[in-house]
Amino acid sequence: MRHADLSTSQGILLTDFYQFTMAQLYFRMGLHERPAQFDHFFRSYPDYGTHQAGLCINAGLDSLLDWIPEAHFREKDLEFLAAQRGRAGTPLFAADFIDWLRTEGGFDGISMRAIPEGRVVHANVPLTVVEGPLAMAQILETPLLNFLNYQTLIATKAARVTAAARGRPVMDFGLRRGPGFGSNAGTRAALVGGVDFSSNVGMSQVVGSTPKGTHGHSMVQMFLALGEGELAAFRAYADLYPDDCVLLVDSVDTLESGIPNAIKVFEELQRRGHEPAGVRLDSGDLAYLSIQAASMLKRAGFPDTAIVLSSGLDELAIWQIMTQIEDEAPRYGIDADHLIGRLMFGVGGRLLTSYGDPLLDGVYKAVAVQHEGEWVPAMKRSENAAKVPAPGVKDVWRLYDQRGRATADVIGVSGVDTETTDPWQLHHPIQPGKRRELAASELSHVEPLLTEVLRHGQRVAEQATLADLQHRRQEDLTRLDPGVRRLINPHIYHVSLTRQLRDLKQDLLTSTGGTPQPTL
Amino acid sequence: MRHADLSTSQGILLTDFYQFTMAQLYFRMGLHERPAQFDHFFRSYPDYGTHQAGLCINAGLDSLLDWIPEAHFREKDLEFLAAQRGRAGTPLFAADFIDWLRTEGGFDGISMRAIPEGRVVHANVPLTVVEGPLAMAQILETPLLNFLNYQTLIATKAARVTAAARGRPVMDFGLRRGPGFGSNAGTRAALVGGVDFSSNVGMSQVVGSTPKGTHGHSMVQMFLALGEGELAAFRAYADLYPDDCVLLVDSVDTLESGIPNAIKVFEELQRRGHEPAGVRLDSGDLAYLSIQAASMLKRAGFPDTAIVLSSGLDELAIWQIMTQIEDEAPRYGIDADHLIGRLMFGVGGRLLTSYGDPLLDGVYKAVAVQHEGEWVPAMKRSENAAKVPAPGVKDVWRLYDQRGRATADVIGVSGVDTETTDPWQLHHPIQPGKRRELAASELSHVEPLLTEVLRHGQRVAEQATLADLQHRRQEDLTRLDPGVRRLINPHIYHVSLTRQLRDLKQDLLTSTGGTPQPTL
Repeated sequence: MRHADLSTSQGILLTDFYQFTMAQLYFRMGLHERPAQFDHFFRSYPDYGTHQAGLCINAGLDSLLDWIPEAHFREKDLEFLAAQRGRAGTPLFAADFIDWLRTEGGFDGISMRAIPEGRVVHANVPLTVVEGPLAMAQILETPLLNFLNYQTLIATKAARVTAAARGRPVMDFGLRRGPGFGSNAGTRAALVGGVDFSSNVGMSQVVGSTPKGTHGHSMVQMFLALGEGELAAFRAYADLYPDDCVLLVDSVDTLESGIPNAIKVFEELQRRGHEPAGVRLDSGDLAYLSIQAASMLKRAGFPDTAIVLSSGLDELAIWQIMTQIEDEAPRYGIDADHLIGRLMFGVGGRLLTSYGDPLLDGVYKAVAVQHEGEWVPAMKRSENAAKVPAPGVKDVWRLYDQRGRATADVIGVSGVDTETTDPWQLHHPIQPGKRRELAASELSHVEPLLTEVLRHGQRVAEQATLADLQHRRQEDLTRLDPGVRRLINPHIYHVSLTRQLRDLKQDLLTSTGGTPQPTL
Repeated sequence: MRHADLSTSQGILLTDFYQFTMAQLYFRMGLHERPAQFDHFFRSYPDYGTHQAGLCINAGLDSLLDWIPEAHFREKDLEFLAAQRGRAGTPLFAADFIDWLRTEGGFDGISMRAIPEGRVVHANVPLTVVEGPLAMAQILETPLLNFLNYQTLIATKAARVTAAARGRPVMDFGLRRGPGFGSNAGTRAALVGGVDFSSNVGMSQVVGSTPKGTHGHSMVQMFLALGEGELAAFRAYADLYPDDCVLLVDSVDTLESGIPNAIKVFEELQRRGHEPAGVRLDSGDLAYLSIQAASMLKRAGFPDTAIVLSSGLDELAIWQIMTQIEDEAPRYGIDADHLIGRLMFGVGGRLLTSYGDPLLDGVYKAVAVQHEGEWVPAMKRSENAAKVPAPGVKDVWRLYDQRGRATADVIGVSGVDTETTDPWQLHHPIQPGKRRELAASELSHVEPLLTEVLRHGQRVAEQATLADLQHRRQEDLTRLDPGVRRLINPHIYHVSLTRQLRDLKQDLLTSTGGTPQPTL
C-alpha cells in the first residue's frame, strides 16, 4: 500500500461498515448524541489446544490512546461513504448524516476508563469502559477491539514464553512471519508482555527499546559462493564486531564446522583483548546441540559464552529444551544450571501469531444508555448464559488476601463503599447461584482497577514508558498464586459479581424475555 | 501509535536488525554493491492440524511493490542506526556506512521477477526472485517476507473457506479480532483469495471493493434499554434501509422472538413495495437454526430471503453446516439445495488469522552472487535435506497435460530451451534419486511462471485490479486436478527439478562439505 492508502486504511475508516449503518439509524432517531456506555472484556483465556492460559496481560491501550485523538473524517472518507449505494441504487447514507460526521464525527466526546496496560487481567472483567455519544461510541467498537484484542493476545503469549525461559533473555524475531504491519503491534505487545528485545528495528525505535540481532545464514553462504569458507565469514564478522560477536554456527555443519570455526575466531578475539559474545543455533536438536556446543566451548576455554537458540520456539519448546538439558547435560560433564544460565532465546512467528490460539475473543457490549438524565442498564440476552455480559455502569476491584496475593476480581455496580463492605458476597459471573463470602478481615487491600485514561477525546494520564509497563506486569505476576501462573492446567482465578450486580443481571434477564437462571 | 511513529515503523526500518550488521560487513568488504540473487519460496503448505492444504494462493506482491519505491532512509532513521552501541559502548555502525545508506541506501538497484499475485503456487517453488546490490537485497529480506508470507497465508485460507461455501457469498468480518493493522493486509488477501466482500471500510476503499454489513446486537439492546422492543428496532432499521434490510435475529431469542419479528417487518416492507433482503444468525446451532428460519420464512411467504450465517466460521464449520442442512432440511419440508442457495457467510477472526495454522514458512535465501561478471551459485547446506534450496539463477515452468490440467511445476537452471526439451526429466526436489519422465507429446503447454515485476526499484507491470487477481485465481483453480484442490488429504502436486539443476545442487552439496544424497 502507498502512504496515501495507509492513511485511509489506518484512519477513522478502520471500522466495520455496520457501525455506519447503525450510527445513521441513531442519527435519524435523534439518539446519536445520547450518552452511552460500552464495556470491553474477553470471555475466555487463550486456549492453545493442549493447554489454556490462566491469565492475560493487558496490552494495546496506549496505541489506541494515540490513535483516537488523530482519527477524523477527511473529505475523501466522507465521499466514500456518500458513494455507497443499496440494492435499489439509492445512497445508503443521507447528506445530513454525512454533514454531521463532517462536523461532529470525531472522538472528542469519548471518555474512557481502563485497567492500565501491562497489568494481569482476567476473563469477563471489564478492561475498558467507553462513555460517549452513542453514534461515535458505536463506531469506536471495531478499532478499539482491533487494537486491544491482538496486543493482549500477544502480550499474554510473551508472558508465557518468558516464564518458560526462567529469566533468561528472550528476543522477538517474528517480523518476517508476523501478520503484516500488525507485526509492529505484536512486537510492542511482546515487549510489554515480557520479551527483552526485538529484532524489529523500526518498532524498537518507536517504543524506546534497543533492537538486537547478529547475522544470518546468507552471510556465510556469500563467503562460500565467493570461494571463501565459513571461517573467513566468521573472521570478517569478528573483525567488524569484536565485542559483539555472536556467530551463527549451523550454515554448514554445527558440530563439525560451525563450533570449531567459532572457537578459532574466539581464540583470535581473545588474543586481541576482546571477549567473545556467543554462538547461535538455529536448527537441529537444540537441547542436544547446546550441550555439545557448551562442552566444546568449555574444552576450548570459553565456559561462559552465550548460546542463543532459535527456530520454532514457543513456551512448550523452551520448557522441553530446559528439561532435556537438565536431564542430559550432566552425562557430558556439563553443569545444567550453568548452561541454562548462558542461554538466550529468539522467538519468532509463534510469538507474533500466538501459536496454538491466534484469537482472543474480546467483545464490546452496550451496557447502559442515558434516558432522561439517568443511566439505564442495557443487556443482550443470549442462548448461552456465558455470553451475557454484566449490565450497567460498573466498577472493578481486585481483592488481595492477607499474604498480599490477588484473590479475586470483583465487578459491581458503581458506587459501592468498599471501606464498609463486610463481608464481600462474591457471586459467580455465569452461575448466579454459586457464591462465596470473604470477610473484610481476610483482605489486606481492595484496589480499584479502572482508571480514567481518556476525557473528551484527550489522553488524561501521562504516557507510560515501556519500563513502567514491564514493571506493572512483573508486580502483578508476583502477587498471583503460582497455581494461576502455571503454564499447563492453571488454577482458575476468581472473577465475581457483587450481589447487587447479580440481582440487576437476573432482573434484566427476566424483563428481556429470558429465563433467569435458578439461584441455589 | 501516532502518525509519526507509523512512518517509522512502516518505513525502511521495517526490517530485522541483523540485516544492517550484515550490510555493514558487506560494505566494509567492498561487496555491498555486488549483484546478488535471492529466492523467496515457502517450504510446506499450511497444516491446519487436522488437515493440510495442497496449494497456496500467491498474495501480497502488489502491496510490496507499492512499498518498495517509497521506502527510503530519513535522517531520523539514520540517526537511530548511528546511535546503536555495542557492549563496549562504541557505535555499531560507522559514519561511512551511514553515509552510504544516506546516498545509496534505497531500493533503486533492486529488480524482481515473480509469479503473479492471485495465482496458485506450490511448496519449494521460487515465487519471487530478487536481484540487486547485495547490501540492499539483504535489507529487503524482512519486509519482503513480512508482506508476502502473511498475505499468501490468508489468501490460501480464504480460498479454502470459499471452496467450502460452494459459490455462496462469503464476507470478511475479521477486523475486530484480526492482528492490528495487519488486518488490512488480511482483508486484501482474503479478497484476492476468494472472499466476495469485507466489512472493513477503509481497506475496501483502498482495494476498490464495496464494504458490506448490516447491524449488530447493540442496536437491539439500545431499543430494549430505552423501553422499546426488538420489533421496534427492526422497524426502525427497515424504515431506514427498506431495500437492504438484513435483520440480526438472535439478540433476544432467535426462534421465539427474532424470526417472528423479522417476518412482521418483512410483511410491512412488502406491503410498501420493498423486497426484504434477509436475516442473520450469529449464535447457536447455525445449521438447525437455518432450517427452522427457512421453514418459518417459507410459511410466511418469504421463501427466498437470504440467510446470513456468522460466528466462529471457517472451512470445516461451513462444510459441516452444509452437510447438516443436506441431511436434515428434507425432514422439515425444506429443499436443501434451495436453502443452501440462499446462504451467505460472514467469516471473521478465523479467516484473518488462518486458524489452525497461523504461520507460512516462507524464506528468502541467497542463491547466486556475481564474481568477475559471472553468476556463482550459492547454497546453504542444512542438516535437513528438505531445507536446502535449489541454487543458482533459475526459471520456473508449469507443465499442462493434454487435458489442460497443470501437472507439475518445474524449476530449472535459466536458459532451458523448453521448445526442444523432450522428454522432461523431472527430479524430486528433496530426494535426488526419485524422478519421472514426461514426453513432450503428453503436454499441451509449458508456461513460464516468473515475470518481471520490478526493474531498478520501479514497478514494471501495470497494477492489477482486484478483479484481475480474482480471475487469475479462479483460472488456476479450474486447471488443477480436483484431488489437489481437496480440503482434506489432498493429492500432492508435483514440484520437480530439471536434471541439470539436480546435478548442480548435488555438486554444491559435495563441495560445501555435505554428504550428497545417494542417487538411485
